[in-house]
Amino acid sequence: MTVSRTVELDGHIIDSGMMGQCFGIVMDMNGSFEVEEFEVGRHKDATSYCRMRVSADTEGDLQSIIHELHQNGANPADPRPASAEPAPGDRVVPAGFYSTTNHPTEVFYDGQWIPVDNIEMDCAVVLEEEDGEYTARTKVLNAIREDDLVVVGEAGIRVNPPERPRDGSGPFGFMQGGVSSERPSESLIREVAEALVETKREGGNVLVVAGPALIHSGAGDALADLVREGFVDALSAGNGFATHDIERGLYGTSLGMDMETMEHPRKGHKHHIYTISEVIRAGGIQEAVDAGLIEEGVMYECIENDVNYVLAGSIRDDGPLPDTITDAVEAQNAIREQAHEADLVLMLSTLLHSVAVGNCLPSTTKTVCVDINPATVTQLLDRGSSQAIGMVTDIGTFVPTLAEKVFEVE
Amino acid sequence: MTVSRTVELDGHIIDSGMMGQCFGIVMDMNGSFEVEEFEVGRHKDATSYCRMRVSADTEGDLQSIIHELHQNGANPADPRPASAEPAPGDRVVPAGFYSTTNHPTEVFYDGQWIPVDNIEMDCAVVLEEEDGEYTARTKVLNAIREDDLVVVGEAGIRVNPPERPRDGSGPFGFMQGGVSSERPSESLIREVAEALVETKREGGNVLVVAGPALIHSGAGDALADLVREGFVDALSAGNGFATHDIERGLYGTSLGMDMETMEHPRKGHKHHIYTISEVIRAGGIQEAVDAGLIEEGVMYECIENDVNYVLAGSIRDDGPLPDTITDAVEAQNAIREQAHEADLVLMLSTLLHSVAVGNCLPSTTKTVCVDINPATVTQLLDRGSSQAIGMVTDIGTFVPTLAEKVFEVE
Amino acid sequence: MTVSRTVELDGHIIDSGMMGQCFGIVMDMNGSFEVEEFEVGRHKDATSYCRMRVSADTEGDLQSIIHELHQNGANPADPRPASAEPAPGDRVVPAGFYSTTNHPTEVFYDGQWIPVDNIEMDCAVVLEEEDGEYTARTKVLNAIREDDLVVVGEAGIRVNPPERPRDGSGPFGFMQGGVSSERPSESLIREVAEALVETKREGGNVLVVAGPALIHSGAGDALADLVREGFVDALSAGNGFATHDIERGLYGTSLGMDMETMEHPRKGHKHHIYTISEVIRAGGIQEAVDAGLIEEGVMYECIENDVNYVLAGSIRDDGPLPDTITDAVEAQNAIREQAHEADLVLMLSTLLHSVAVGNCLPSTTKTVCVDINPATVTQLLDRGSSQAIGMVTDIGTFVPTLAEKVFEVE
Amino acid sequence: MTVSRTVELDGHIIDSGMMGQCFGIVMDMNGSFEVEEFEVGRHKDATSYCRMRVSADTEGDLQSIIHELHQNGANPADPRPASAEPAPGDRVVPAGFYSTTNHPTEVFYDGQWIPVDNIEMDCAVVLEEEDGEYTARTKVLNAIREDDLVVVGEAGIRVNPPERPRDGSGPFGFMQGGVSSERPSESLIREVAEALVETKREGGNVLVVAGPALIHSGAGDALADLVREGFVDALSAGNGFATHDIERGLYGTSLGMDMETMEHPRKGHKHHIYTISEVIRAGGIQEAVDAGLIEEGVMYECIENDVNYVLAGSIRDDGPLPDTITDAVEAQNAIREQAHEADLVLMLSTLLHSVAVGNCLPSTTKTVCVDINPATVTQLLDRGSSQAIGMVTDIGTFVPTLAEKVFEVE
Repeated sequence: MTVSRTVELDGHIIDSGMMGQCFGIVMDMNGSFEVEEFEVGRHKDATSYCRMRVSADTEGDLQSIIHELHQNGANPADPRPASAEPAPGDRVVPAGFYSTTNHPTEVFYDGQWIPVDNIEMDCAVVLEEEDGEYTARTKVLNAIREDDLVVVGEAGIRVNPPERPRDGSGPFGFMQGGVSSERPSESLIREVAEALVETKREGGNVLVVAGPALIHSGAGDALADLVREGFVDALSAGNGFATHDIERGLYGTSLGMDMETMEHPRKGHKHHIYTISEVIRAGGIQEAVDAGLIEEGVMYECIENDVNYVLAGSIRDDGPLPDTITDAVEAQNAIREQAHEADLVLMLSTLLHSVAVGNCLPSTTKTVCVDINPATVTQLLDRGSSQAIGMVTDIGTFVPTLAEKVFEVE
Repeated sequence: MTVSRTVELDGHIIDSGMMGQCFGIVMDMNGSFEVEEFEVGRHKDATSYCRMRVSADTEGDLQSIIHELHQNGANPADPRPASAEPAPGDRVVPAGFYSTTNHPTEVFYDGQWIPVDNIEMDCAVVLEEEDGEYTARTKVLNAIREDDLVVVGEAGIRVNPPERPRDGSGPFGFMQGGVSSERPSESLIREVAEALVETKREGGNVLVVAGPALIHSGAGDALADLVREGFVDALSAGNGFATHDIERGLYGTSLGMDMETMEHPRKGHKHHIYTISEVIRAGGIQEAVDAGLIEEGVMYECIENDVNYVLAGSIRDDGPLPDTITDAVEAQNAIREQAHEADLVLMLSTLLHSVAVGNCLPSTTKTVCVDINPATVTQLLDRGSSQAIGMVTDIGTFVPTLAEKVFEVE
Repeated sequence: MTVSRTVELDGHIIDSGMMGQCFGIVMDMNGSFEVEEFEVGRHKDATSYCRMRVSADTEGDLQSIIHELHQNGANPADPRPASAEPAPGDRVVPAGFYSTTNHPTEVFYDGQWIPVDNIEMDCAVVLEEEDGEYTARTKVLNAIREDDLVVVGEAGIRVNPPERPRDGSGPFGFMQGGVSSERPSESLIREVAEALVETKREGGNVLVVAGPALIHSGAGDALADLVREGFVDALSAGNGFATHDIERGLYGTSLGMDMETMEHPRKGHKHHIYTISEVIRAGGIQEAVDAGLIEEGVMYECIENDVNYVLAGSIRDDGPLPDTITDAVEAQNAIREQAHEADLVLMLSTLLHSVAVGNCLPSTTKTVCVDINPATVTQLLDRGSSQAIGMVTDIGTFVPTLAEKVFEVE
Repeated sequence: MTVSRTVELDGHIIDSGMMGQCFGIVMDMNGSFEVEEFEVGRHKDATSYCRMRVSADTEGDLQSIIHELHQNGANPADPRPASAEPAPGDRVVPAGFYSTTNHPTEVFYDGQWIPVDNIEMDCAVVLEEEDGEYTARTKVLNAIREDDLVVVGEAGIRVNPPERPRDGSGPFGFMQGGVSSERPSESLIREVAEALVETKREGGNVLVVAGPALIHSGAGDALADLVREGFVDALSAGNGFATHDIERGLYGTSLGMDMETMEHPRKGHKHHIYTISEVIRAGGIQEAVDAGLIEEGVMYECIENDVNYVLAGSIRDDGPLPDTITDAVEAQNAIREQAHEADLVLMLSTLLHSVAVGNCLPSTTKTVCVDINPATVTQLLDRGSSQAIGMVTDIGTFVPTLAEKVFEVE
């Protein structure tokens, strides 16, 4: 006995690899398929359409195949309405809840296709009704409240993976995992600079995710310049980043009175603690800027230029600074807002914060990942933007070169 | 004009490298020294003694040199009493506060040498008086309360770096940063097993710090065995570790009813979320064990055998589980307690949690760091236990081999 | 003005990704295409066919696009005969020589399609005539002789990239670059063992490429077992591998007279030199085995079981052993022969030798790459077998586990 | 029964760590010691002296300890003359031959201390007599000829490990294995530039060891500048480096006629082969420069400025170029000469060639290792210069920055 179901794909399904992947999935999972209708896009602006009947030996196998096809953009030909059940409790999902991909998604409910807002991976989809109109949005597990109407099963859901840009993808490789440390850096950095300038020109939002190595390696001034000149809309970092940045302003260049009692700059960790202590005494970074304690650096420029920043706490932190959000769930929520607004994300030498941001990004956001460790870059690219650049290089030279090129291009 | 001060070293200062380091520090920092008295330990159980006059061009330079010597165990010959000042506010240290090393430390105050309790790096030392008796202990910045009596300056403080063990250091290299992936693993793992068994035989405390890769790589059963058999006193991990462990028990091997609705195990992330959801519904891990939901695995054994565990939250977490401590400061405090009680720490394939634990360890605690990434092992060993083993190997084979050898040796 | 040309694709061009790639290439290179005919394979055993007209602004652009399409299996619809020119000198190719891919290739010459023998990347194709019949084979640059008939241009050449296996690719991912250190090792190693046993059962040839870390990490005995039991047809290694293996037999376990004069096994490098010296004195490895000097180990088993071995020299070598081929070109030729005969290649903890072997492999040979360094595994997988497994793990546990499973499965 | 022997140390044995290491060795190897005489250097320019009696349970244990002490600079107090035996054959050493360290070494023979020329690790020491005068020099195994007079045993040999520089070691850390990617690059690169300029000012010899990544990453022009301006005395590289460099000159920037027939620069490997082919046709690099084929680049500047270069072959090579030394032993000999003449060695993004050069260096040569892979840097630093700098950074920015600073400093 075999069971079967019909699915459809449409759009630029050939060059985006969707159709090939779908054929491959069926075969890898020991199913079979029969193409019932196929219309090829005859030129690059024409879309293709494929309707195929997928068969498997058991209903379970078929469901597995359909699930996988679905994640890759093949949707059932006969959309039954989506099902939804109330959440059994706060932070509890009903059995069989639909878990999102990071691709644009729609739900067929109450007789129409409803787009899912704030798409992000591994979330539940919650339906909300107001004045007889339904809207849909993602919710992470801890945001679920008892009786939220949660979509279950896979019927009535349409996933739209990104398509290959028609006019070349520019520096952003389409769906490419490859990372090379041997690519000629200068020209690639220029292309990133151009993408950044163009994003801003179009009114887009640039989010910088940065780790403390950025400051250690001397790239703080260049990032501060980018913030001052308006090329950064939001900063996502941690307590260490902010402390190093402020400490560098306080102790790195001037030789004030405090330097004398602090004595020995060789093993600067004491400065680190003292910096935090002084900011705590002031009441926070804004207050420390207002009081004239902080006069330069990335955080200073964020304050002066009203750039939104999130400092997420970690169990490695000293202090922390009063601005640091120590609760992981609260911090995630703040990061989530930044991620949802971003059009271009620069992930600069931090795995932890980049993963946290990346978890909240839809597959349509452009990302640039830079780290000296190839494993970090690979891991970040694997998470799934369809338009991503990975560079294995020294952050201490990348950021100044980027800033230089941004100001040239501008 | 030159200024000078006299410092002393005693103990096994030659083979522990202290004396060589102190000579080197003076020269590297452009000072000079004059050995006023030197008594060499003529055999391996005899200690040596060195008193030397250190000179520099300026008081500032001299202070820098003395600070550095001090960190390495050279103490002023004429101990003046330590100074202390009240903290100007909650989480604020007085200017010039003394910032600790991770070596055993004493403070000369109120006419006597007081040992500093709970020694750990980058803390302040707080003096407390009760019935006219002073005690001293470390406090991290966020534990400081207004008017705490905080030691300032470096006078009256004695640091005692660990000495090379007289009878060979066994597998734990003394003060060695070197990490090799080429060492014959079998025999080294046996030595770690022997150290673990011996620690337990002597009533010591074994802390395991573990990352989710341990579960992914199939080493969960072996760790669960070690917990069940009493070789683990505490577990320090994260939300991901616990969720993967529980999920594996729930979905990995059995084929319960839920499996059917959950459909496709290929991209298990949905299981991950559902596992957390079900534990939340139960009320927590203990409750889920009591209810029979969790019947095996590392967390199960921790519950059944009353093994203390800390699950520290992170901004990468899904969920999280109710047991996860989401506040970074609370989580650090819980980790700190684990670290202070440990005699032997196994750091298994997690950089984040290992650094958090390592930050709280005195230099005298034995540590074993295992990771497939040499950079992780190097970073952990650099943090400063004097008795550490680093192994670059696959955690999925290390833990089962370790468990096997522990049960053989036992 | 636009210029255009018609190309064809046929076979399993959808699921193998060829058609998607070809569409993508045209767009990325700013060309356009018009699909003139398209027949989809309606089920998994049916092939597809696509004929499309590709256009570009200039003849140069078009050539570039056609070249790239060609490398990916799109062949001109109207095959003109291939051109060929005599090589102008020894080790000199004519301008515009055709440089091979590692995919099966045919040349249209003298009125028929001639398969190219010994396909391997970055070679010239040389046509040879005997009794009026032409044959074609690859030649590396240094094998070219004056007046060799070398194919030039891209006309009349058909490249056939491998297609996705119809019945799932087993453990060998089809065209996947991804490497994971988190995959459950045990089951994957079992699948490799099964592939190895199956290869031998079908009369195939297994080539092991091994680095010295294999011996250091204690996996020598397990590899020797595999050789003894007939699971290895050829060994490709270096002077270091063989020396470590022999040295281990000579000094590692026994305590002969030489041990006493050699004194201190702690820094064994002297053993290393002395081992080579003694094998030189004997006249070579075969002679040293005959004389009873070498009584165990991988090299011993290779001699005893007539397993072909190539020891390629390197500028890092000590000695070297008389068996080591010190000339790089000669060594490459020997490696080339091994590679051409292999059906399954295990690349074990050596980048240098694995790259050398990989350079000579057609894309149809199955490869397994194992190294503790993820960058090494990634680099090897990138070179292009269509059926490859990469594992980031400790070679010291991989080989013994593999051997165990091979003997179980057998 | 215990056996014992007396050893001496003198020089700056405390700050160089020698004395501490020697004490440690005795204890780690379960021996004991009795310091018979000790004179401490009372200030930084005064040397220390230690005579100690070392005891162990068996003669074998004692020999092991004495061997290890000896490697670290502790020499027998009662130097017996060295023994020497004729080599039993070409490339065969007598049993018990003395295997060198990379430290300056003397042999007591024929009544006097003879310095060993061309000191390098893992060699034999050969004594040669002329007019009744003995000289000593190192020979690698394959240079040994029958009847060469080879030193055996450890009597009569004095090893002198380098001492810590009295005036600070500048950027070159003394005996430090540590490598950091977080150090502020700019200032460190400046210090390297200063060391380079100073070496040339003092008439020293600068050897650059370079891998192909240097060209890929766009740093070729900067290295060519350094060669042209006389800051490089010798270049040690491989076939790939030279080919990439020449190919870049030929195809990278100009758009000559050949470009048209070569068609598509996207996958440049065909250029690579064709470049080699054209240089072969010319007869070699010198001839290709003379003929005007090569007009720029690193190799061009080497030819024009009479900079000695060695291109060592490898089994990974295409071609190779006629200048490439394909025989590993010949190539090693050429590298050995370069290494022996060098005062400062820059190892730039190549593990293979750097190890080959490093094997031939005495411990007194300054080395700078730069690679994006921390494991490469660590491995190179471990090999033992006492004055080494390791930097984990992108070679594509390091070399241009270095060149810029060299021209500034000059």
